[in-house]
Amino acid sequence: MSTPETRPQHSQATHTGRSNIPSVSSNAEGEDIPEFEPFGLHPRGRPNLRDFLDVWDMNMLKTRDEINKKEHRTHLYNNDNLIVRRGQQFQIKITFNREYNPAKDKFWVEFLIGRYPQGNKGTYVAVSPNQDQTDGQWGARVLGSEGSIVTLGITPAPDCIVGKFRLYVAVMTPYGIRRTRRDPQTDTYILFNPWAPDDSVYMGKDGEIEEYVLNEAGIIYFGEASEVESRPWNFGQFEYGVLDACLFIMDKAQMPLTGRGNPVKVSRVASAMVNAKDDDGVIVGNWSGDYLYGVAPTAWTGSVEILLNYASGGMPVCYGQCWVFAAVFNTFLRCLGIPARVVTNFFSAHDNDGNLKTDAIVDEDGKLDRNLTKDSVWNYHCWNECWMTRSDLPEGFGGWQAVDATPQETSDGMYRCGPASVHAIKQGRVYLPFDTPFVFAEVNSDVVYWKRKKDGTQEVVKVDPHHMGKMILTKEVGRDESKDVTDLYKFPEGSEEERLATEAAVAYGLKKAEIEAPVTEVDIAVNVQDVQLGSDFILALEFKNKTPHPRTMVIHVSGNIVYYTGVTHAEFKSLTKQVTVKPGETKTVDVEVKSQEYLSHLVEQAMLNFFITGRVNETNQILTAQRVLTLQVPKLTVKVSGIPRVNEQMFVTVEFTNPVKFNLDNVNMRMEGAGLLRTKVKNYSIIPPNSSLTWTESFVPSRPGRSKIIVSLDCNTLRQVYGQAELSIDP
Amino acid sequence: MSTPETRPQHSQATHTGRSNIPSVSSNAEGEDIPEFEPFGLHPRGRPNLRDFLDVWDMNMLKTRDEINKKEHRTHLYNNDNLIVRRGQQFQIKITFNREYNPAKDKFWVEFLIGRYPQGNKGTYVAVSPNQDQTDGQWGARVLGSEGSIVTLGITPAPDCIVGKFRLYVAVMTPYGIRRTRRDPQTDTYILFNPWAPDDSVYMGKDGEIEEYVLNEAGIIYFGEASEVESRPWNFGQFEYGVLDACLFIMDKAQMPLTGRGNPVKVSRVASAMVNAKDDDGVIVGNWSGDYLYGVAPTAWTGSVEILLNYASGGMPVCYGQCWVFAAVFNTFLRCLGIPARVVTNFFSAHDNDGNLKTDAIVDEDGKLDRNLTKDSVWNYHCWNECWMTRSDLPEGFGGWQAVDATPQETSDGMYRCGPASVHAIKQGRVYLPFDTPFVFAEVNSDVVYWKRKKDGTQEVVKVDPHHMGKMILTKEVGRDESKDVTDLYKFPEGSEEERLATEAAVAYGLKKAEIEAPVTEVDIAVNVQDVQLGSDFILALEFKNKTPHPRTMVIHVSGNIVYYTGVTHAEFKSLTKQVTVKPGETKTVDVEVKSQEYLSHLVEQAMLNFFITGRVNETNQILTAQRVLTLQVPKLTVKVSGIPRVNEQMFVTVEFTNPVKFNLDNVNMRMEGAGLLRTKVKNYSIIPPNSSLTWTESFVPSRPGRSKIIVSLDCNTLRQVYGQAELSIDP
Repeated sequence: MSTPETRPQHSQATHTGRSNIPSVSSNAEGEDIPEFEPFGLHPRGRPNLRDFLDVWDMNMLKTRDEINKKEHRTHLYNNDNLIVRRGQQFQIKITFNREYNPAKDKFWVEFLIGRYPQGNKGTYVAVSPNQDQTDGQWGARVLGSEGSIVTLGITPAPDCIVGKFRLYVAVMTPYGIRRTRRDPQTDTYILFNPWAPDDSVYMGKDGEIEEYVLNEAGIIYFGEASEVESRPWNFGQFEYGVLDACLFIMDKAQMPLTGRGNPVKVSRVASAMVNAKDDDGVIVGNWSGDYLYGVAPTAWTGSVEILLNYASGGMPVCYGQCWVFAAVFNTFLRCLGIPARVVTNFFSAHDNDGNLKTDAIVDEDGKLDRNLTKDSVWNYHCWNECWMTRSDLPEGFGGWQAVDATPQETSDGMYRCGPASVHAIKQGRVYLPFDTPFVFAEVNSDVVYWKRKKDGTQEVVKVDPHHMGKMILTKEVGRDESKDVTDLYKFPEGSEEERLATEAAVAYGLKKAEIEAPVTEVDIAVNVQDVQLGSDFILALEFKNKTPHPRTMVIHVSGNIVYYTGVTHAEFKSLTKQVTVKPGETKTVDVEVKSQEYLSHLVEQAMLNFFITGRVNETNQILTAQRVLTLQVPKLTVKVSGIPRVNEQMFVTVEFTNPVKFNLDNVNMRMEGAGLLRTKVKNYSIIPPNSSLTWTESFVPSRPGRSKIIVSLDCNTLRQVYGQAELSIDP
Repeated sequence: MSTPETRPQHSQATHTGRSNIPSVSSNAEGEDIPEFEPFGLHPRGRPNLRDFLDVWDMNMLKTRDEINKKEHRTHLYNNDNLIVRRGQQFQIKITFNREYNPAKDKFWVEFLIGRYPQGNKGTYVAVSPNQDQTDGQWGARVLGSEGSIVTLGITPAPDCIVGKFRLYVAVMTPYGIRRTRRDPQTDTYILFNPWAPDDSVYMGKDGEIEEYVLNEAGIIYFGEASEVESRPWNFGQFEYGVLDACLFIMDKAQMPLTGRGNPVKVSRVASAMVNAKDDDGVIVGNWSGDYLYGVAPTAWTGSVEILLNYASGGMPVCYGQCWVFAAVFNTFLRCLGIPARVVTNFFSAHDNDGNLKTDAIVDEDGKLDRNLTKDSVWNYHCWNECWMTRSDLPEGFGGWQAVDATPQETSDGMYRCGPASVHAIKQGRVYLPFDTPFVFAEVNSDVVYWKRKKDGTQEVVKVDPHHMGKMILTKEVGRDESKDVTDLYKFPEGSEEERLATEAAVAYGLKKAEIEAPVTEVDIAVNVQDVQLGSDFILALEFKNKTPHPRTMVIHVSGNIVYYTGVTHAEFKSLTKQVTVKPGETKTVDVEVKSQEYLSHLVEQAMLNFFITGRVNETNQILTAQRVLTLQVPKLTVKVSGIPRVNEQMFVTVEFTNPVKFNLDNVNMRMEGAGLLRTKVKNYSIIPPNSSLTWTESFVPSRPGRSKIIVSLDCNTLRQVYGQAELSIDP
């Protein structure tokens, strides 16, 4: 998993003595096979080949309107070569020098991939006509003959290697084997096939495959469970160059070709390669707020720019955060034909190495101790699910598999995660590979609040068993709405099944806190309406006294700017109040927050975290509550005009008004649309308060069908501003 | 898994915004904790601390003759600091300024490791006296008081982090916490404890632990199943600097401290780090025969030189082959207290990515096609087993776990292997992590011989289901003899259990050849006596005609020089004969091999591979047989003289006579002995035929007990020449 440029020379030792031929881990071709392969003994004199079949032309039927790309649902790829899916017949027409005589002539079609192609490794395949497909093998048969033109139907094995093959037609003569010349025009991509029942990514339901393989326009959810935000993303898996970029990623990983027909291995290798950690993979993670030497994670509008950039030089692209890793990974999976979707887990245990316990440590004043609190709870975290049978596991764990390309701190130091069977996670079968304990913990950890006392010892203040994995969302099939998939990961809260699943996970080595939390005397709830960035708002604190006695508390409210990773950037508000609540009653205290209090501190995604702590005077009990608040940012207005028809010029206009009371500096805007226009970037050095901008671009749709134009606006003080326009292009 | 020096800067992004504190993955210390930690409010004026307990001295009872190292079996480590094993009490003596009063005084002992020590992560531990060990927690109690001296018994938790801790004694005063100063003399190593029933590496049988944890002198088996050779190896796990080198390896791997109490994770990380592939680990593999810029793999006499070399600069050491990786890995495991041994698998499927089928492709003349034969069968392969419970797996898969540090070609591109439960391998439960399919295939693959025909198609000539994993050997407990452990990995050949285990493995995704091999008419056996390098010998070919008809065959004998990886270096003999055998009879044909035929071609380990192919005239059936032959090399004579007593000077003399008929050039000799002498190297530019050399060194034993001096001789034309002398040192 390293490139020659960055590794010391000595680790590039020769293969001599170790193996007959070096490892084959690239689509790149080797020496060609000979055009004429003579047999040892033959009649004297120059061989006379005129009597034998000679190939004059191969027609791959590869245009968008011909049978192959339509039947194989590969017509959307912006790629001139033939692209087919395995386990399904495609057709080619071979023009010979004369009529083909099945009784007398012997020819076959050869598929080669990589260097040292070899039959036993699936890197060399020879198919003869009338060798019907049996038992998951490759097959070919003559579908028709018209004069000297033969139409051949070829079916790749449903578990064959996925990648770019070279094609030859070979004819047997008594003197030797005669082959067609190497012709890049006949190179053929073979992909996974979710429509083929024998393929391990077979999905069955047609509407779902359309979404999970063919849809290029994605919606990614973020924010907070009670206030979910969404943003559009152009996966762009069919754009020019993206398929080659995906194959390049596996080559860069030095993934042996032999494993490339297995979606378990392909998705596992890619989960390591999508992040740049430890292997010079696609995207460099950066959560620091400083994106000077790259693109801010929030500014991207799609995967295409990232993948093409990476494939052009093999250098990691700057920068990404979890949804960028997940979105690019999704493009990779869909592009190769593996059904995939991006999911968002709200409140996600992170970097805690598969423990079922996330510790938060507060000091005696109830403030989070940032030096002692090592565990992270991300407000949300995005990963991917991909669909496949798991023949490497016992029965019953196929279907959706969680894979995660965001690098996390793991105790074995590897930056890869999955595929972990979602059903195994639900059932607590955490010993089933790969990395199941990790994902189980992300959705199931308890949050344990500790108070650190004077003498250094710690005391549990509160245990929250239902904070993590509050909700898991993905995009609905066929609609721009959210679909709640929490029940795929977890049994209902408090159910017997949930208890059993947790017990199973603990039995297989996960560590759970065995802690009794004290019963609180007063419950605190924090209510707040949707808040627009730049506006003042009210935080309503609701105190419910559960005892038959009056309770007086000193309450501390701490308002913090946080990253979406839960890390605090700055405290912008600190307030102490005394509250008395009668026995059994509920009392609400309003806290006013002015926009000038938080605006100047904002970072990244405009998330505020309110931490409320109280001490009951009568009993000294500590109370805690917190609330994450995502400030609503304005949307961009995106309008299209012109006749929506292939090859006709159209226009798109974006409008934006600065809603905040200060200048926006160094504003970066991006726009793209699958099949419509490549990424365009525009920079504005300053946008004063209340001033508006209008950006118009022309474009020419290259293919028919529904698509979207996605636009982002990003600057240091305002991020996550998006807009989109949907349009349907006529042929 | 990378170092700042070799990685691009951008992958070293700051942790800001992503986590509160950076990942803690090193034993290295951070800022010290304060000597005095004042409480917020205290009486006015300077605090008067004179009334409170003050620590004047800490005695770690850490010399070889004191109680701790004896009871914890760590007396052999050449290390001045205290070394103890977890889950077992050790003692320290604390001298206070006055008598300790349990009713009034409050003190505790603190153990810290790494930066940002934290209670919830096990990197900060505070133990108070009379906090008896309960439920796997740390405990401490006062064992005695004599004046102002308190003897404290401390028991680390049986699952605590393994590494080097910093110690402090803290005393509570009304003004704040008062601590001892940082003192490197009190730094304490805590190791795994195979003698402690609650430790996950608990082993039970005492004689076995002595061998698998305390024995520094190893025997490694190599050669061929019917002709096993052995060589000595100095693991040297107790030598000066080795324990620190082992901790350095985990730091270099950036392995988070939190995982370092778990032997599953420790052994997995080390299996990646012992080889330099992809992570700048300890040893660079090289099988090329060209070792100009490093030490030839056959020349090493032990692990110490390699580990100390690596730890001194963090640069990979050149060069290793499988037994070097396994031997150094063994040192690492034993040094940290994990029971471990080196095993040798005779005929080992390699680089075939967990397939149950290894293909050998022969041309029409029966010669191996080196371009088409991608799969390797190594004549032998060494890996390690380490002993632990596997609480991450269902019941029944604890005990020996296979781990392998030799980099192999795997389809997910990772150079690590294991721990794979040996019992899971035997039972075919290949879905249990980690890498079980891989090891299963190494001992269970079928060898399938294919003949490549004119038209490129291939035909099965022979299937050998019992070639691979012919025998698995390790050193006996307490004796320099071999122990056959094949039955830990495999059920008896042909048994019902064997069939079921294979069926299980196939059900969980391993691919097996479904091939009917033709029944051979004539069996060929190849017999040969032990052959000394440099002598002529006879190859006896035995032909058994199993048909009721006479059979005449044209026989081709091909003699090849091979690497131990099975790769052919050169063909030195090629011979064709005609043989006729009567119905049902057996006939022997002798083939003479002269030393001058093979001597000039020799590489590496002096292994010859004879490939016998025949074609039956009457039926055209192809017959194949092969035989690997390890040439016997001379041993070195090693004699010691002097009084075998600690600190007395002794002498060792090595003698060698060149047995071959040509000069040995650039001869490299090495000598070492645990507790006796550090590695000495001597070079001879030339040793003419029949000439002798004598090498004498003096040494001074540093500790009592049995030990060995191990010597190697190595040059391009003669390798694997070893000698040893055993001696027992009096105190």
